[in-house]
Amino acid sequence: MRYELYYWPTIQGRGEFVRLALEEAGADYVDVARRTRGAAAMTKLMDDARAKRPPFAPPFLKAGKLVIAQTANILLYLGPRLALSPRDDAGRLWAHQLQLTISDLVVEIHDTHHPVTSWLYYEEQRPAAKRRTADFWKYRVPKFLGYFERLLERSGGSYLLGRRLSYVDLSLFQIVEGLRYAFPKRMKRFERRVPRVIVLHDRVAKRPRIAAYLASERRIPFSQWGIYRYFKELDR
Amino acid sequence: MRYELYYWPTIQGRGEFVRLALEEAGADYVDVARRTRGAAAMTKLMDDARAKRPPFAPPFLKAGKLVIAQTANILLYLGPRLALSPRDDAGRLWAHQLQLTISDLVVEIHDTHHPVTSWLYYEEQRPAAKRRTADFWKYRVPKFLGYFERLLERSGGSYLLGRRLSYVDLSLFQIVEGLRYAFPKRMKRFERRVPRVIVLHDRVAKRPRIAAYLASERRIPFSQWGIYRYFKELDR
Repeated sequence: MRYELYYWPTIQGRGEFVRLALEEAGADYVDVARRTRGAAAMTKLMDDARAKRPPFAPPFLKAGKLVIAQTANILLYLGPRLALSPRDDAGRLWAHQLQLTISDLVVEIHDTHHPVTSWLYYEEQRPAAKRRTADFWKYRVPKFLGYFERLLERSGGSYLLGRRLSYVDLSLFQIVEGLRYAFPKRMKRFERRVPRVIVLHDRVAKRPRIAAYLASERRIPFSQWGIYRYFKELDR
Repeated sequence: MRYELYYWPTIQGRGEFVRLALEEAGADYVDVARRTRGAAAMTKLMDDARAKRPPFAPPFLKAGKLVIAQTANILLYLGPRLALSPRDDAGRLWAHQLQLTISDLVVEIHDTHHPVTSWLYYEEQRPAAKRRTADFWKYRVPKFLGYFERLLERSGGSYLLGRRLSYVDLSLFQIVEGLRYAFPKRMKRFERRVPRVIVLHDRVAKRPRIAAYLASERRIPFSQWGIYRYFKELDR
């Protein structure tokens, strides 16, 4: 099966959680919108007035006739097919539950730089962004990453679900990568509080296919247009 | 199977999407935290240091030995068991995808009154709330509810997925209820733009078990502590 991924072609964004899973599995896939006229193809698919199950927003995945949207839902579908989630129903629900928790964290990361509204520039909401970011690092990062740290403590293996890598590990890797980009100083100070999360990050980074992907042009660099953005004054 | 629902006992919140599904199905369930010492039982289950799969936050559902968290994940599990989602895999993924879109909308509704941070009172972030609310009604409500309106146009039945009611219909009903509570004037003006969504809402409200539930004490009233809050100046 050749999968078709549809996502904004110039950012990692939410699509990156799907890309990491496809790359780790060595899956046959096309990153459609990054091809010539690909972005137009993406818009066309979304606006198709005859489509009975149109996606609300990217990312979405075309798998044969199926079109699946919502990042965590795509991973729920891909997990067993890419051998990146447990085979039993309870295990799959648990992996999905963790992925949804990561989705919640992603929203909160984005909102650090755009708390008031996405229709204003960052510079127009800087005081609110400072306040939001302070609370994010005081309360939310410890709560979220502390939770994953505890899971790793209890998992009975090197990965969140135990001895086998799952798509949730790849997503947690991406969270660490993004926080390091957006908040290098804060993250450096914080990492000692979640040593297992960092060990997991490093382990994922060294997996041959992930390492090859990160070194390739397929990995879009972080930028000031994605979920994670760097502003010096937010990174005291 | 007697289900145990764990959620904050004094608000509708995210737990309400699960309550509506259990009520519509006439399921045997206990709303644990609303019982004597129930809130303590909820905290205990969350903080259990031996639990291998602890929930990150309420709501969560205990079903036999399984403990399932994340609202949309709970509904993904309950759907086929309560006959509130399609039986085929593609249909279940589609229902779940819509539920995740509703989850996204819920976050945005909450953030209208607390855009900057949840650690400040509304009164301390009123200008930001006004700006956020204006954009929410200008861009986001039309996009989200317009999407569901189009789905109803194409579904080939009275419900979002076609001829049979699903848990997504119940959740969309709840969105309409909440918007009417928090923004009575704005919602009144907006409803004419999504007539099918309103017809669906009314249809759900009249279902015998839902009508009985809404009239019962099991339905917690809206308040100023949930996702939906009413502030006159946000409802111009």
